Amino acid sequence: MNPADLATRYRAYIACLNQQDWPSLGQFVDDQVHYNGQLIGLAGYQAMLEQNFADIPDLAFTVEQLLSEPPWVASRLTFVCTPIKLFMGLAVNGRTVTFSENVFYGFRDGRIEQVWSVIDTAAIQAQL
Amino acid sequence: MNPADLATRYRAYIACLNQQDWPSLGQFVDDQVHYNGQLIGLAGYQAMLEQNFADIPDLAFTVEQLLSEPPWVASRLTFVCTPIKLFMGLAVNGRTVTFSENVFYGFRDGRIEQVWSVIDTAAIQAQL
Repeated sequence: MNPADLATRYRAYIACLNQQDWPSLGQFVDDQVHYNGQLIGLAGYQAMLEQNFADIPDLAFTVEQLLSEPPWVASRLTFVCTPIKLFMGLAVNGRTVTFSENVFYGFRDGRIEQVWSVIDTAAIQAQL
Repeated sequence: MNPADLATRYRAYIACLNQQDWPSLGQFVDDQVHYNGQLIGLAGYQAMLEQNFADIPDLAFTVEQLLSEPPWVASRLTFVCTPIKLFMGLAVNGRTVTFSENVFYGFRDGRIEQVWSVIDTAAIQAQL
């Protein structure tokens, strides 16, 4: 896949998340996906995302910056959202917060197999 | 600059940091550099780095993953280091910690003009 095609595929993955279209998640995420070095698998990945939407009903993924160099994508995601209680161990409790996630995705056969994510929890903490 | 040349330039910037070669920093960093959206300028950038090395004498930047799509570079940096007291507001106090920084750099005329960095402070906290 060339860089433009991989970027398009990544944006389709983000659309899938924003639609909470879980039946389609396996088109974008490998059965053996690793998250920050830990094998969680497709089912674990979906469970993590469903928990995120349960914790943050207005969760939406916005791509601020995107680099594509197959088989890797780097994405800077921004969030403006309202966790109802805890998020990442922080008692947000219904405040609206703005933060970023800088994340690297390794693809295999067109599916995400590795995710290396850092979420800006310090920025959230500063808003509480 | 093509992707390979920009990647080479970025690695030279990282070597400059690891050598604490501050007189050369201006070859890699724009006078009007912004850090996470805030104009800090070359002098402010150098002061931030010098403070980092004062706080963490064994600080070393290791590039784990690098994507280059001019004028942007995305880099996943890893650190194994020993902050002597506080780091990012955390009382590390001489423990050796391992953490990542996922960071996007926007270049202008071969120099870094924008930095969007997220440091994995949650990982540090989990090690204390």
